[in-house]
Amino acid sequence: MSKNRPSLPKGTRDFGPEISARRNYIIDRIRHNFRKYGFSQLETPSMENLSTLTGKYGDEGDQLIFKILNSGDFLSKTTEEDYKKGSRHIASKISEKGLRYDLTVPFARYVVMNQNDITFPFKRFQIQPVWRADRPQKGRYREFYQCDADIIGSNTAWNEAELTLMIGEVFSDLMLDDYVIKINHREILFQLAKYVGLEGKEIPFCAEIDKLDKIGVDKVMENVIEIGADNERLKELTELFNETNSEEALSKARTLIGQNKGIDDVSEFFEILGQFEKRNVKVELDLSLARGLSYYTGIIFEVKPTSVEMGSICGGGRYDDLTGIFGLGDLSGVGISFGLDRIYDVISELNLFPEEVTQTVDVLILHFNKENQKHGQKLVMELRENGIKAELYPDQVNIKKQFNYADKVKVPTVVIIGDDEMSTGNYSVKNMVSGDQEKHKINELIQLLKGVNN
Amino acid sequence: MSKNRPSLPKGTRDFGPEISARRNYIIDRIRHNFRKYGFSQLETPSMENLSTLTGKYGDEGDQLIFKILNSGDFLSKTTEEDYKKGSRHIASKISEKGLRYDLTVPFARYVVMNQNDITFPFKRFQIQPVWRADRPQKGRYREFYQCDADIIGSNTAWNEAELTLMIGEVFSDLMLDDYVIKINHREILFQLAKYVGLEGKEIPFCAEIDKLDKIGVDKVMENVIEIGADNERLKELTELFNETNSEEALSKARTLIGQNKGIDDVSEFFEILGQFEKRNVKVELDLSLARGLSYYTGIIFEVKPTSVEMGSICGGGRYDDLTGIFGLGDLSGVGISFGLDRIYDVISELNLFPEEVTQTVDVLILHFNKENQKHGQKLVMELRENGIKAELYPDQVNIKKQFNYADKVKVPTVVIIGDDEMSTGNYSVKNMVSGDQEKHKINELIQLLKGVNN
Repeated sequence: MSKNRPSLPKGTRDFGPEISARRNYIIDRIRHNFRKYGFSQLETPSMENLSTLTGKYGDEGDQLIFKILNSGDFLSKTTEEDYKKGSRHIASKISEKGLRYDLTVPFARYVVMNQNDITFPFKRFQIQPVWRADRPQKGRYREFYQCDADIIGSNTAWNEAELTLMIGEVFSDLMLDDYVIKINHREILFQLAKYVGLEGKEIPFCAEIDKLDKIGVDKVMENVIEIGADNERLKELTELFNETNSEEALSKARTLIGQNKGIDDVSEFFEILGQFEKRNVKVELDLSLARGLSYYTGIIFEVKPTSVEMGSICGGGRYDDLTGIFGLGDLSGVGISFGLDRIYDVISELNLFPEEVTQTVDVLILHFNKENQKHGQKLVMELRENGIKAELYPDQVNIKKQFNYADKVKVPTVVIIGDDEMSTGNYSVKNMVSGDQEKHKINELIQLLKGVNN
Repeated sequence: MSKNRPSLPKGTRDFGPEISARRNYIIDRIRHNFRKYGFSQLETPSMENLSTLTGKYGDEGDQLIFKILNSGDFLSKTTEEDYKKGSRHIASKISEKGLRYDLTVPFARYVVMNQNDITFPFKRFQIQPVWRADRPQKGRYREFYQCDADIIGSNTAWNEAELTLMIGEVFSDLMLDDYVIKINHREILFQLAKYVGLEGKEIPFCAEIDKLDKIGVDKVMENVIEIGADNERLKELTELFNETNSEEALSKARTLIGQNKGIDDVSEFFEILGQFEKRNVKVELDLSLARGLSYYTGIIFEVKPTSVEMGSICGGGRYDDLTGIFGLGDLSGVGISFGLDRIYDVISELNLFPEEVTQTVDVLILHFNKENQKHGQKLVMELRENGIKAELYPDQVNIKKQFNYADKVKVPTVVIIGDDEMSTGNYSVKNMVSGDQEKHKINELIQLLKGVNN
């Protein structure tokens, strides 16, 4: 092996035939449902101006943006002074573009740039990779896909309900039943913060609550008391968090904090979903769910697998101000994002990938000599004409080698063409799983293989 | 408008709903045929190590690679000396990765890294964006898609024939009839170079011939004479280039240069294709076709639209040494690449995009009040359950505003729910194209809308 053996950049991956086929099986089902629910596709460029990207993800996020070196003589706009001031300073002089960090900021930019042409309410979906210069570790990559759907310019609870039904349909299409959609509402959390005496400290309160899964209830409560929460009232809150029945939880919360927009929204949301109970979408009110509350302003979502140890596989919520960062105010919306890599891992662990997903072709045609192969050329094209994924072994090699190839690529059916088959039109068809071999005329063969596809 | 109005980086594009839908219509048909012909998908990361990318595209190409600034304190590995040596020098110290420039080098890298796991012959396809820091101009972008299919590890003419049949099928699926697939063979061109006295100067000869379209036959012949070609023999060559009948051209070439591997390959290729004449794939031998001959070693392809002024929309050829650059020799193959942007432009100019491609939903449900809308929630889900792309207007606004929205999003059918419709279950269904309005029960409605989809 040459010492120049090539390698991949840290945190990036090749997706060979099997993995690519499985990933696209998931993506296809997500996209199919996005479309069925009336979302239109948007695709934005991988590169954005750094002026678009920076300042949107906090200081920590900004540090994770991959910056692209300006083309040509990029140093020409710098001085030795700039060099001496260090990396952070000179970066802004030698780099104007970066790779997108998420799909939300590019979406907001698109909406602002095209506000006069967009018809609201606007339902868009976007399935594209994003890049983050994160420290590579298990399950965390520097390039990964996000699959987002958002409805902007509409305020009713139907939007949240519809997204929930769509999440249910995506997972049902993927045969994934072991999940729960947890929801909560920022207003309820904020009122609960006030209830325990933390008015004005709602965001730190939520940040602590968000750590429940990680550091446990005792440590969280300790921290919340440190911020200034009332000890007795906090006990009531802990009981409330333990209530697993959604209706009970909502009613208890109402008792503590009274009626408010949060309670109203959640009630209406559950009322709408009540019409679709037979769809078996598993939704729970979890009053301790506190994700992304510096951004979300209404109902928030989080989907977790129930039989596999794994973080959230889908999440989202309602936000009040998508495009304010770009000077266009008052545009609210609600959106969700599917995490492709984690969904892949869950489906993989539960063995839910259908076998045919990774099957390259339905049938492979083998042959004994050049004349047989020539006959095979016509046959393979006739099969393809009938919508069958078919393949002819392209080279003149002995039949054993061809069977070896068939084994390795795991083709389920093989057709063998010899002189006999050519003269009778009766093909030897071998089922590579059972080992059974039968003779079939072309029309029977087509029916047999079409059956496989349907 | 705020002065912070965001913009796109030069040479990049957003694809909004209509354009995205049309692009994906093309991509879906290409991918469908890639799969039908037995190609498996490969996806490689957007970033590659610069050691993988540089030195593969010539000096000019290397300059067009987008380089990614190292994360963190990238200057820490540099000195003031490095700064003074200039951009080109310091680039190698502050940047280790770049965006892929094409799909061929990442494919070669993948094959070398996975050579022990790949079963040859290996048919892979890859549909991903590539990036080039080219000067942006009409029809040339800094981010664009390539759609490649390659067969490696097999040598027979069936591979070339199969790719040709697949090209025909892709364009037939796209309803694009006005094209011609031009082919030639490097060996024939090289023998012709020798015939006119340019032995040892075959590559410069081909480079000149490749300019025929751009600078015309007179100027090209002048240049070729300057290289040292024999004037009289060159006249014979010009006549040969003018021969439009493929069989005649081949036979005349044979007369000039005698039998050789080029003539053999091309004969065999046409003989195989002769079996599939009714498929109407338009292939011509064009002895003046001379693209990419520093890389291709056998048959070369180029597809051109015939009724639109436009460069090649697909091209490719056989190569002898895909992976030699990475130390793995003797791996030959043949591949083609579809140019998505140009195909888009051709189909657009010829008005061949089916109207339903840009249709977001099949039906939109409108309503007069909250109760009607609630009824609509059940209806929209029932339609979706039947595979219909359906949408419910999400807000409580007057019906005129809802119709306005229906017009703008160009939905072909609208269902109006009032109290009367709710009590009778007889829905008002309006065809938004003809303006006709009829009453339909739910089952009729489903049949009507399913008919639209099939």
